[in-house]
Amino acid sequence: MASFVNVEPNSDFPLQNLPYGVFSTCSNPTRRIGVAIGELILDLSVVAGLFDGPVLRPHQDVFRQTTLNKLMALGRPAWTEARQRLQALLSDAPGPLRDDADLRAKALVPQSEVTMHLPADIGDYTDFYSSIHHATNVGIMFRGKENALMPNWRHLPVGYHGRASSVVVSGTPIRRPAGQTRPDESQPPVFGPCKLLDFELEMAFFTGPGNDLGQPITMQQANDHIFGMVLMNDWSARDIQKWEYVPLGPFLGKNFGTTISPWVVTMDALKPFRVDNYAQEPPVLPYLQQQDKNNLDIALEVAIKPKEGGDAVRVCSSNFRYMYWTLQQQLVHHTVNGCNTRPGDLLASGTISGPTDDSLGSMLELSWRGSREVAVGAGRTRKFLQDGDEVIISGYCQGPGYRVGFGTCAGKIIPALPL
Amino acid sequence: MASFVNVEPNSDFPLQNLPYGVFSTCSNPTRRIGVAIGELILDLSVVAGLFDGPVLRPHQDVFRQTTLNKLMALGRPAWTEARQRLQALLSDAPGPLRDDADLRAKALVPQSEVTMHLPADIGDYTDFYSSIHHATNVGIMFRGKENALMPNWRHLPVGYHGRASSVVVSGTPIRRPAGQTRPDESQPPVFGPCKLLDFELEMAFFTGPGNDLGQPITMQQANDHIFGMVLMNDWSARDIQKWEYVPLGPFLGKNFGTTISPWVVTMDALKPFRVDNYAQEPPVLPYLQQQDKNNLDIALEVAIKPKEGGDAVRVCSSNFRYMYWTLQQQLVHHTVNGCNTRPGDLLASGTISGPTDDSLGSMLELSWRGSREVAVGAGRTRKFLQDGDEVIISGYCQGPGYRVGFGTCAGKIIPALPL
Repeated sequence: MASFVNVEPNSDFPLQNLPYGVFSTCSNPTRRIGVAIGELILDLSVVAGLFDGPVLRPHQDVFRQTTLNKLMALGRPAWTEARQRLQALLSDAPGPLRDDADLRAKALVPQSEVTMHLPADIGDYTDFYSSIHHATNVGIMFRGKENALMPNWRHLPVGYHGRASSVVVSGTPIRRPAGQTRPDESQPPVFGPCKLLDFELEMAFFTGPGNDLGQPITMQQANDHIFGMVLMNDWSARDIQKWEYVPLGPFLGKNFGTTISPWVVTMDALKPFRVDNYAQEPPVLPYLQQQDKNNLDIALEVAIKPKEGGDAVRVCSSNFRYMYWTLQQQLVHHTVNGCNTRPGDLLASGTISGPTDDSLGSMLELSWRGSREVAVGAGRTRKFLQDGDEVIISGYCQGPGYRVGFGTCAGKIIPALPL
Repeated sequence: MASFVNVEPNSDFPLQNLPYGVFSTCSNPTRRIGVAIGELILDLSVVAGLFDGPVLRPHQDVFRQTTLNKLMALGRPAWTEARQRLQALLSDAPGPLRDDADLRAKALVPQSEVTMHLPADIGDYTDFYSSIHHATNVGIMFRGKENALMPNWRHLPVGYHGRASSVVVSGTPIRRPAGQTRPDESQPPVFGPCKLLDFELEMAFFTGPGNDLGQPITMQQANDHIFGMVLMNDWSARDIQKWEYVPLGPFLGKNFGTTISPWVVTMDALKPFRVDNYAQEPPVLPYLQQQDKNNLDIALEVAIKPKEGGDAVRVCSSNFRYMYWTLQQQLVHHTVNGCNTRPGDLLASGTISGPTDDSLGSMLELSWRGSREVAVGAGRTRKFLQDGDEVIISGYCQGPGYRVGFGTCAGKIIPALPL
């Protein structure tokens, strides 16, 4: 399967991928939907009229929007037809795009020349806590080895509502938050810049058509409601979080910024990389049971480009397959009480940590609560993030001779406002 | 101050109030913005051209929207000018509405003939926990009298993110949620309909222009970001909540539905009812300190219309003035870390309980965790809500010879879906 567009073997964006994003250019600041192919973007607003299959013909306007929400709303038959059409248009076989130099000139834009934007208007953002290694590590740190996992953890995908307004696209600087902390428990709390700023390696998925309030999504229906996935950095202020989070959960320790990668990789593109689900013991309740392989083999990496300069240094290699709970289980659980979803809702995995010391998805775990140093190159170390540090998450699925990649999810810490 | 529209003395909607809402009619299903006056609604889409003051003249389109978000985005000078213009238009003095029978016929619609809708597209919904009596009561029930309030409670307004998608307007039926619970802690969890369904008496406010990510709203700026208030019922499934909420907070126990009243009462209308703030001890950190009287004297009542029929029976009389934390403190705390707000965000108070047994804002407290019966008329009692029960929240500020009221926030429980 080859494209008429040049695609390097290690490119994240071969013809097998075709992720959707929203971009603009200097010469045309209108936001529009594109599909990544090699180092180019196919501008779907230019080729909307070529989506002439039976499902999409009456809905070509979805490709002329400034977000993906309307495409997400159309549902799986539309998504599949769009993918087939895109693969045909971008393949090296004869076709209306390959063979029309004028159209190619208008429709293909170098990624290096665009600004990427949030792919969707995010109605609600939910963050789960679905990596057993992460939950266990945090539990050991705060409650000891015997009570590491809470009693509910293996019975349901624990999650909470996050802040939709502060989800930003890769590249957006993140200001170090200020807030209340209580570093000395014998003293009153104090106010000031966060001192324990952290990243969290996560992935997230966008929802599809949505369900009505009061009408759960069943396991049989779940795949029809999952559009695609992105990388996510759930920035965390550990000291603010620690003081505020009992009893109602994380709030200001999280909602100062959450970064996602700009390209939404569809579930169709990820299908070849499905692997066995994580073995769940004890067995889950019937509504959460799944027959399909819903787990995904996605190699994940976190690198830090330190403020002092120099190359980004890898601090974590993890994999999405370490997830105990699948996307489908998260969505089914989220709606089992009748909670409604809308196209463009974002559901995140929680920090993805693996079983080894180099696969831990946060500085909290890598530095084991600040008790050990994490090397970031040239003899420099970190326990938590410093102003000027940039965190870069990347991820891909390795196929035979090609990759289905996610690009990067990057953000640089800028100093707190003067108090 | 009198209107040419007839307003009964005990009406919630005199000329001093003028709350905003979104309505449609059978003959015109387009959603449009209206202002309540007596038993009528002034359709602002019809009179948009009459907002010809210096601030609003270039923005008359805000009155032709299907939600209040654009009006909320304009900010306080626009809100104040709109109020002055509305009071003039609806007063009994000569004017372009009073003296034009054709215009009156087009612009004034009986409330009895309309369908009310959500007043705004809610970007994010946050729920606080700001009543000291409620927090203390819940603390005593779950942790005993000695540790009733968590150490952070008097230092910051504890809050968490709720679900925006499931906020519904008064009158929407609420389906009893199903979910995981663990009634017997020696046994695995079970799945089924919620058995401990509850209401929570709350109020909430809509935000105004919004702040950029990374730019907190200070106490000096807070009033310019608070548009107006509504009544809220934060429906709660106590058994689901209990099993799920550690450590990340409430989730499915809350997000199956949250009801708000349709009329947004502006802060200008509430200004005469400001009262002393709740005495805060210990003193709060400087960023939360306030000079103004930000507390509000709003009488609140909860009535249950039982499934068996008969009149609604009052089960709770409370007052918004029991709030320990003010709206301004909630908003300032929410954004102190740089979290951004957008026009139409909804920030709720948390359950408003008073100091007496008849002022408790939830069945959890009224029945003291199911240990006592709550009378709902004709010898009937409840510990929690049953299918067919309707919960009706109302509230008003009493002025000399008039009321600034909120109307009602009502919802009826319908049975869980068959499993």
